[in-house]
Amino acid sequence: MEIPGYDYGRPTAARSPLSPAELREIEQATGWSDADAQVLRRHEQIFVHRAESMVDHWRSILGSQHPLVKSFAGPDGKRDDEYAGKVKARFVRWVVDVAQRPHDEAWLNYQEEIGLRHMPAKKNETDHGHTPPVVELRFLLAFATVVTLSARKFFIESGVTGEELESLMEAWSRAVQLHVTLWSRPYAKQDLW
Amino acid sequence: MEIPGYDYGRPTAARSPLSPAELREIEQATGWSDADAQVLRRHEQIFVHRAESMVDHWRSILGSQHPLVKSFAGPDGKRDDEYAGKVKARFVRWVVDVAQRPHDEAWLNYQEEIGLRHMPAKKNETDHGHTPPVVELRFLLAFATVVTLSARKFFIESGVTGEELESLMEAWSRAVQLHVTLWSRPYAKQDLW
Repeated sequence: MEIPGYDYGRPTAARSPLSPAELREIEQATGWSDADAQVLRRHEQIFVHRAESMVDHWRSILGSQHPLVKSFAGPDGKRDDEYAGKVKARFVRWVVDVAQRPHDEAWLNYQEEIGLRHMPAKKNETDHGHTPPVVELRFLLAFATVVTLSARKFFIESGVTGEELESLMEAWSRAVQLHVTLWSRPYAKQDLW
Repeated sequence: MEIPGYDYGRPTAARSPLSPAELREIEQATGWSDADAQVLRRHEQIFVHRAESMVDHWRSILGSQHPLVKSFAGPDGKRDDEYAGKVKARFVRWVVDVAQRPHDEAWLNYQEEIGLRHMPAKKNETDHGHTPPVVELRFLLAFATVVTLSARKFFIESGVTGEELESLMEAWSRAVQLHVTLWSRPYAKQDLW
């Protein structure tokens, strides 16, 4: 199914200024390794089947906090359901991509694109929205912890236990932080990122 | 014991521009609650007794990665042991403070100070160092995952198990991300943080 605005691997996506070697440095700093990629792939069906439930769970939390839910508000202050729906479809796909996609050039470029889509540069462009121009970096970083920790119950519900559960949680934790770290690039002052 | 440069609660520390209400918003976005503060306090002796071992572990990882260890290098390219030692003493104290300190004005101000001490504004000022002027934001965020996940084995070695271990890991995860989120403030472009 076509997901509107899902420009993964397309020339319309931004280009990351990072080299593959620079990406490897950041991966290494999180502790990410091939073993993490393998754990996520081993459980990719969990992500395929539960991604929408996970996003629904996160959105219910976002919806209960004004500083977070305000990002979805139109000029009248009410939730722009069309905008929120389009963003959701890509959020669900992101969950699956975290588990399945190799960290290649297309992946890296799309992380740059996702970062920009949380900022004045592109936040409303993709979906022709009229919502506030930015998801502030502090909330993007802070909410990453909810995305990380709340996955545990979905993994357990899918039958993952013991050491494998810990490995999956660690891989997911590293992956989420790697993503938000890449998304933070255009938020930072020159030479400080 | 006096820790050089540990300006917690002193007028020499920076002042955070955040209001208590703005701090609460960020805490809430991470999922942080009073229950987390209580779990950390319940296990504060682990942090008191193991903080130096934890920091030694993290520094051994930092030391194996050039983009991370370069922050400790003097003008000759070699590790500035005096600088690194002073930073370490405060890093150890930070671990204990995470477990013990209430999130009040003094705490908030010191997080602003810590952020600035990773940046050109103050990185070498406190210890009269001549090291590179910045710990890049990408490495600060990425390494937070190592600090988060690697604490697990220290908690287990200290006898924490089962549900209590999960509660402690979750509280620690939220606390670490809250701290690095606050440290990221001066790195961000105006109105985007």
